[in-house]
Order: sequence, then C-alpha cells, then structure tokens
Amino acid sequence: MRQLSETLGIQTNGQRLIEITNKISDFVHQSEINTGIINLSIMHTSASLLVQENADPDVLKDLLSYFDKLVPMNPQLYVHGIEGKDDMPAHIKTALTQTHLTLSIQENSLVLGTWQGIYLFEHRLQSHHRKVLMHILGE
Amino acid sequence: MRQLSETLGIQTNGQRLIEITNKISDFVHQSEINTGIINLSIMHTSASLLVQENADPDVLKDLLSYFDKLVPMNPQLYVHGIEGKDDMPAHIKTALTQTHLTLSIQENSLVLGTWQGIYLFEHRLQSHHRKVLMHILGE
Amino acid sequence: MRQLSETLGIQTNGQRLIEITNKISDFVHQSEINTGIINLSIMHTSASLLVQENADPDVLKDLLSYFDKLVPMNPQLYVHGIEGKDDMPAHIKTALTQTHLTLSIQENSLVLGTWQGIYLFEHRLQSHHRKVLMHILGE
Repeated sequence: MRQLSETLGIQTNGQRLIEITNKISDFVHQSEINTGIINLSIMHTSASLLVQENADPDVLKDLLSYFDKLVPMNPQLYVHGIEGKDDMPAHIKTALTQTHLTLSIQENSLVLGTWQGIYLFEHRLQSHHRKVLMHILGE
Repeated sequence: MRQLSETLGIQTNGQRLIEITNKISDFVHQSEINTGIINLSIMHTSASLLVQENADPDVLKDLLSYFDKLVPMNPQLYVHGIEGKDDMPAHIKTALTQTHLTLSIQENSLVLGTWQGIYLFEHRLQSHHRKVLMHILGE
Repeated sequence: MRQLSETLGIQTNGQRLIEITNKISDFVHQSEINTGIINLSIMHTSASLLVQENADPDVLKDLLSYFDKLVPMNPQLYVHGIEGKDDMPAHIKTALTQTHLTLSIQENSLVLGTWQGIYLFEHRLQSHHRKVLMHILGE
C-alpha cells in the first residue's frame, strides 16, 4: 500500500460554493495511484464539503439561498454571537453538510458521476484562507 | 492489501427509501475480505445514501414526509426549474444527507448496529436507474 | 498494512453533544500507526457523529436548540410514535448529521483543525449506552 497527502489551500471571498474537483483530480493523477481511496478533511467548522451538481450554476445559487433561509443570520436565535452574526449559522450549516468525504480512485482517476463535482461550501461573509487535507491510500 | 469493486444498479420508482443492505452485505461475503472497509459512492446528485433504522417501516414514511416538508416542491422558491419541480429539492435533500459512506468490515461481515440498514434515498418523482459503486479495501 | 479496531462505549444522559476527541486520539496513539485513516461507525440511529467547534461551549448549546426547533418533538407530525415523542425526531436528526466519519492519521496523530472536536450527538431524552467502532487502517 502507498499513501500520499497534500494540503489544498483555498482563498474564499464570501458565502459561495467553490468547485475544487480539478484540484483533487490533479492530485490523484500526479499520485500515480491506480486503485484506492482519497479522504478529504476540511480543517474548519464554518466551511464544509459537498458533492453536488456541476452542470447548471443556478443549482449553486439555490443551494446558497436555501441554506440561508434554513439557518437565518438572526442574532436573536443564538447564544454564540461574539464572532459575528454569520458565525453560528456557519457552524450549523457545517453540521448539516460534510466535513469529511471519502471517494474512490479507479484507473488513476477520481470516481464521480457524470454531473458530480466536489465543492468547498464557504459559510462566512468575509474572506478566509481554507485548508483541505487530501490523503490517498492505494496501490 | 486487496481491493475489489463492483457497481450496484438500482431501479427506483418515485420518492422512496430503498434498503440495499443485503446487496452490499452479499458483496462483502463474496469478496472473502476478512477485515477492511467498504466505501459506497452514489453516482448522482438527486438521490443519496443513508444509514437508518430498518425495524419499523413507519420510520421510513416519516423520513420521506419530513424531508418533503423541509424542502418544499414549490417552483417559486428556486431559480433552477428546467428539470422539473422535484429536481432542485432533490439536490438540496442530497446535500442534507450523504453521497458517500464508509463502513467497516470485520470477520468478513459488514459492521452495522442491530437496527441499522443502508438505504438509497430516491428524491425524484419518476423512475431512475441509479448506480452505487461498492469499493472494498482490506485483507 | 496494519489494522486495529476497538469499540468505544459512551454513557449518555439526555440530549447533549459529548466530546470524544481525546478517546479517539488516545486509540490512535496506542495503535502506533504512523500514517493511515480511522473510520468511526456509530452503531445507532438515534444518536450521531459530528465534527464541530470545541472552543466556545455556547456553540454546542446553539446546535442543540437549533436541531430541536428544526425537528420538533411533536407527536402529531409523525406516524412512528411507539418509542416516545423523542424517537422519530432522533432518527431525523441522525439523517441530517453523520453515522460514519473517516479521518486522517499523520505522524501517529489524528488530523483535526485547530478548533475541531469530534462529538457524539445524543438525540434521545433518556440515558443510553452508545457504541462507536473505531477502526484504523495504516502503516
């Protein structure tokens, strides 16, 4: 068994779904691992990971606005407010999505459905430097 | 380390939770892997994966109706509407549940709690042919 | 490749987020695995797993109250009621969070962000004895 890991740095700029499929796919190709898995770990609790449709950009807009309505940025709803009105909603949105994802590698390629992309889901209003650990195990 | 993978095809027929535990369990037995993990990847973004109670069928009915109320099939709520009124809610329900699951294998058996089953959660109204990649790593 | 597994038993006492980071971290250190992954599987469908902020305890209070409002303990909303008014909401909260988590191990340590902790999220009102399988694969 071989293992490789690398940290992906992503600069965000407000609430958005940022596609990171190509960066992960490139790391898989460079690893020369034919068959295995890749585990993704986001190092934060106010941004998360998601596998979603990457065809129509309207899907991303609707996801953003749905999560904003589901978890309102209303300070009266939360005790934890010291880091800004967007912080506690960010933690809740992270709880409702994913911090860790494990995908398959076959024939030195990431296995994804035709319309699937991997996204970093930024839940904070301000810019942040986010880190995602990519860790491959395989042969 | 040994690795094996196979694609499970599931024909769906409207919104429903379809138990796939036996199919995954059979693949584990046939693999003759004693100890390892199995990674499940659904190849879609309008159907998802879930580990849930498999004792009382009413739990599945309540899950379906809860998610339908949480993510209303109301076209006025979404920009993305070209694939039908059930498509954007299907993407959101997928975001709120799982596309990838990793379970343990011990003594050539899937490790699950007494009342746990693995489900494919179909979010679309019409019939679909769904694919789930089953990928085992172990010894 | 080496593999090790152990079941973690956790006594709960009502709805709460119980941090289990140290217990998992200790198992990683004892395993003497330098590089690998650890897969966590909760053996239940009315308690779940979550990676969340472990700095301000108010975040945990807000998570609890948010999920309680999102999934009301109102028997009129559910068909499945025989196990108590908190049982069906517990299944739904489990569906909205995680039953399985896979984290990386590097330099014989669990990889977590600065503010990340691993939590067992108890959704039932009464005391329960919960089990989480910890399964390490690595070298």
